[in-house]
Amino acid sequence: MYILIELVGIFFFAVAGSLMAARRGFDLLGSVFLGGVCGLGGGVVRDLILNESPATFQHPIYFVPPVLAALCVYAFTPAVRKLHRLVQLFDAAGLGLFCMTGTLKALEHQFNPVTAILLGVITSVGGGLLRDVISNVTPDLFNPRDIYALAAMVGSTLTVLAWHLGVMNSLVGFGIGALAFAIRVASLRFGWSVPLAAGHWHRSTPTSPGHDGPQRHF
Amino acid sequence: MYILIELVGIFFFAVAGSLMAARRGFDLLGSVFLGGVCGLGGGVVRDLILNESPATFQHPIYFVPPVLAALCVYAFTPAVRKLHRLVQLFDAAGLGLFCMTGTLKALEHQFNPVTAILLGVITSVGGGLLRDVISNVTPDLFNPRDIYALAAMVGSTLTVLAWHLGVMNSLVGFGIGALAFAIRVASLRFGWSVPLAAGHWHRSTPTSPGHDGPQRHF
Amino acid sequence: MYILIELVGIFFFAVAGSLMAARRGFDLLGSVFLGGVCGLGGGVVRDLILNESPATFQHPIYFVPPVLAALCVYAFTPAVRKLHRLVQLFDAAGLGLFCMTGTLKALEHQFNPVTAILLGVITSVGGGLLRDVISNVTPDLFNPRDIYALAAMVGSTLTVLAWHLGVMNSLVGFGIGALAFAIRVASLRFGWSVPLAAGHWHRSTPTSPGHDGPQRHF
Repeated sequence: MYILIELVGIFFFAVAGSLMAARRGFDLLGSVFLGGVCGLGGGVVRDLILNESPATFQHPIYFVPPVLAALCVYAFTPAVRKLHRLVQLFDAAGLGLFCMTGTLKALEHQFNPVTAILLGVITSVGGGLLRDVISNVTPDLFNPRDIYALAAMVGSTLTVLAWHLGVMNSLVGFGIGALAFAIRVASLRFGWSVPLAAGHWHRSTPTSPGHDGPQRHF
Repeated sequence: MYILIELVGIFFFAVAGSLMAARRGFDLLGSVFLGGVCGLGGGVVRDLILNESPATFQHPIYFVPPVLAALCVYAFTPAVRKLHRLVQLFDAAGLGLFCMTGTLKALEHQFNPVTAILLGVITSVGGGLLRDVISNVTPDLFNPRDIYALAAMVGSTLTVLAWHLGVMNSLVGFGIGALAFAIRVASLRFGWSVPLAAGHWHRSTPTSPGHDGPQRHF
Repeated sequence: MYILIELVGIFFFAVAGSLMAARRGFDLLGSVFLGGVCGLGGGVVRDLILNESPATFQHPIYFVPPVLAALCVYAFTPAVRKLHRLVQLFDAAGLGLFCMTGTLKALEHQFNPVTAILLGVITSVGGGLLRDVISNVTPDLFNPRDIYALAAMVGSTLTVLAWHLGVMNSLVGFGIGALAFAIRVASLRFGWSVPLAAGHWHRSTPTSPGHDGPQRHF
């Protein structure tokens, strides 16, 4: 059950990675690679921090979702103008699942609540961050026009609460993941955002074009 | 005492990270994240190389400086044109402290002098490097117009010398850190630099604009 | 013998890293650093995944090739227009050697064949990927106009086969490395390529200029 949820989450992120590869004009192997980095990167970083050999490399089954994702994107390439939005949608689905599973893994390792929340957030934003950094675009994580890390943080915090209240089960876990997904997607749709890092500035005056993609206007 | 110096160094680097977030138009959570990466990244990389679970994730107190730094930058955002210079100043302060503490940690792990110096340099330049890579700008580390890694290398080498001569104490350590800071800042002020990687070229003919920021002219 | 091959492979990658530093206008210390990242990065990532302390930091001799490479590039800087091609040539030589040695190390750690192939590929593409990410250019790995990861994959797969057939020796290993090198160089010369990630598009319509360098035309 747990591993099935993981594989689904990896697949969502891997699709986001392969769509990014399509958007940037990379080839099919690059698509598998970028899907793998996006789907498995967050978990690998988490396992390195937990100082254990990444589970990913123990079981070849973890490499099936990236290959499937790259083939799906190859077979059903969407129109160019939809690519960026689709990357964000699949990314949001992976975000929702991983903030919950990453936090659970940290809790099973007896980490304190604060660190468990952080590891959940790192697991869920790490893959997408690596995807963007390797693709040489400014990470979506930092986009000031919507909510990203905050959605993961809400999911991780609720997971810690459910765990300590003893009410954690598959259904609750799935609900928490769905909520984090919903927050992220709603923020994209309705333009919810977090205040800027620079408190005194107007939103319209960053010093450099920080983000790419059709829906940005600065 | 040791942990207090570490926390101060983390705070300096975290301010540099949050200022970068401000400069690039990121939001407040991105500011905390980038400050955390910049302040804690060098130490995490060092601990991964030492093959131990990063100390950062054992004690939640390490996450206080990045939060404080992001709040400070939010409350007291400087004028835009000063941002790049301020990033460099706080970065230099972190550099000075971390080349000394990173080297000491490697020496305590019985590493040979050469590796200890290298780990000190990696600890001190790693956070800023990760900050720049994640922010999608060319790393300050590679700027050919001033001295960066060399300042850390001087600090690390002096730390190894002081350790093997048995004269290492808080005062000496602080002095070494201050010296590395001074070298870095002086190189920015007076344009000290290291020869270019390409020996035969004139300084004015790199193939691509390698760096951004107001004080570069090529 | 084994360590000698490793050092030669590190030197090839380190030259590729230092040439990139020259191409981007970095200074001599940045050249040593980028050469070190390119030459040693793949192996360090592999060792982190194997959950052992990176061999690189146990023996200072591993740091000799990057220093030598930076000095060579400094002394014999080629003409600007040849730089990108030379980076690729030395990178290909390192790729050939490392896909073989990386796979062997994974096999010695009793990994299954699939993971051994993957670790070989990661070892051989990791250094160049880190070099490009840190230099803030789109990774060569993703260039859709030639073959990169596939060459490493062929080398790793043949290494696994030779190992399981019990015919692995220095000569066979060298032959496998030379074959991977030849595939990579031939793909550059004759324009061999892998299908694009986006199956339905024409090669001439990527959404953004994915790559830099004189020989790209889109």
